[in-house]
Amino acid sequence: MSKVTVQEKVLSENDRLAAGIRARLKARGIASLNLVSSPGAGKTSLLERTIRSLGGEIPMALIAGDVQTENDADRLKAAGARMVRPIVTGGACHLDARMVERALAELSLDGYRLLFIENVGNLVCPSSYDLGEDMKVVLVSTTEGDDKPLKYPGMFRRSSVMIVNKTDLLAHCDFNLDRVRANALRINGQLEIIELSCRTGEGLERWYDWLRRLVRPT
Amino acid sequence: MSKVTVQEKVLSENDRLAAGIRARLKARGIASLNLVSSPGAGKTSLLERTIRSLGGEIPMALIAGDVQTENDADRLKAAGARMVRPIVTGGACHLDARMVERALAELSLDGYRLLFIENVGNLVCPSSYDLGEDMKVVLVSTTEGDDKPLKYPGMFRRSSVMIVNKTDLLAHCDFNLDRVRANALRINGQLEIIELSCRTGEGLERWYDWLRRLVRPT
Repeated sequence: MSKVTVQEKVLSENDRLAAGIRARLKARGIASLNLVSSPGAGKTSLLERTIRSLGGEIPMALIAGDVQTENDADRLKAAGARMVRPIVTGGACHLDARMVERALAELSLDGYRLLFIENVGNLVCPSSYDLGEDMKVVLVSTTEGDDKPLKYPGMFRRSSVMIVNKTDLLAHCDFNLDRVRANALRINGQLEIIELSCRTGEGLERWYDWLRRLVRPT
Repeated sequence: MSKVTVQEKVLSENDRLAAGIRARLKARGIASLNLVSSPGAGKTSLLERTIRSLGGEIPMALIAGDVQTENDADRLKAAGARMVRPIVTGGACHLDARMVERALAELSLDGYRLLFIENVGNLVCPSSYDLGEDMKVVLVSTTEGDDKPLKYPGMFRRSSVMIVNKTDLLAHCDFNLDRVRANALRINGQLEIIELSCRTGEGLERWYDWLRRLVRPT
């Protein structure tokens, strides 16, 4: 079977839309990250810090998905984001490529280098939906338990980066950093792991450096 | 058949099975609670404490749902639970009535007064699936943010009790108890609210008293 034939697999409707989004972002030189986590793990807090510290250096656009309310988008605007587009799913437990495509149709991405897509807080369903992003970044917080990669393996398998947030609470939680690292690498040996605290700022420089490398012209 | 029609059909089948489960549990005088929350909010920890403190007084059976692993069921057995049945959903983001029906078919509930069903950690999808329980109990932890009832209203609307767990971490989090109460009651004015810490034990007596009233013969 030729290489072409192998590549001619039937894509689902979502995958087809996602491929289109990916091609368009790539053509414009925009890196894109799909942020996924449990509710309350700190996706919006991480984006707030990132906008404040890096927004002047890396032009970034944001799509903020939520089941109800536009609270997250409002927080990101207050943090100084220049381009934020909320998506309220109205009950749906994940973003899909069609929602992202519609959001992108309303944005002018000229001059942007990085697109963050903040997914709905859910460690299960968003793992199955390609949004056309370059990579998924999964957040896990020290208050959730270090067994999460084993219990929700799909998300950790499909992510490229795992951020361990809320390291400031380590002293108060039964959470072991070595164990979460080992559990995560058991599911996905390629995971880049970054530990930080959005509250104290500890570890954020490593995340910023990783983002700088991501958007650096090759 | 459209996607919506298929989903409606699945839900009506689920509701039919749930009604059957509810009738059978009621006929045997067994109260049943469906525990729902984000991953890591403390469902298993709450059940461990409850089994240790109340297991001798109230005969309780448990069904522990998980996406992968039987870790939760193992923890509950170690805590002294006499009857634990794991359900591994194999990727599915919620329990449904058929899974519970199958689990119950393998259990002899003679002599039990209370059935706990620990759902998959997910604040969105489990809200749509009636498992035949008397009530849903939603856990939210102080590390998740006090806006969760507004952001995931479906779950709080369909629950009868909200437990605020991890009160021992209040001093270290930007979480306001008055605000989470107000947000929750705005979504569901009938919610019973219980604040506690599974780590220190603070507040657990109120939960135990609530369970004692639930199973008291009327």
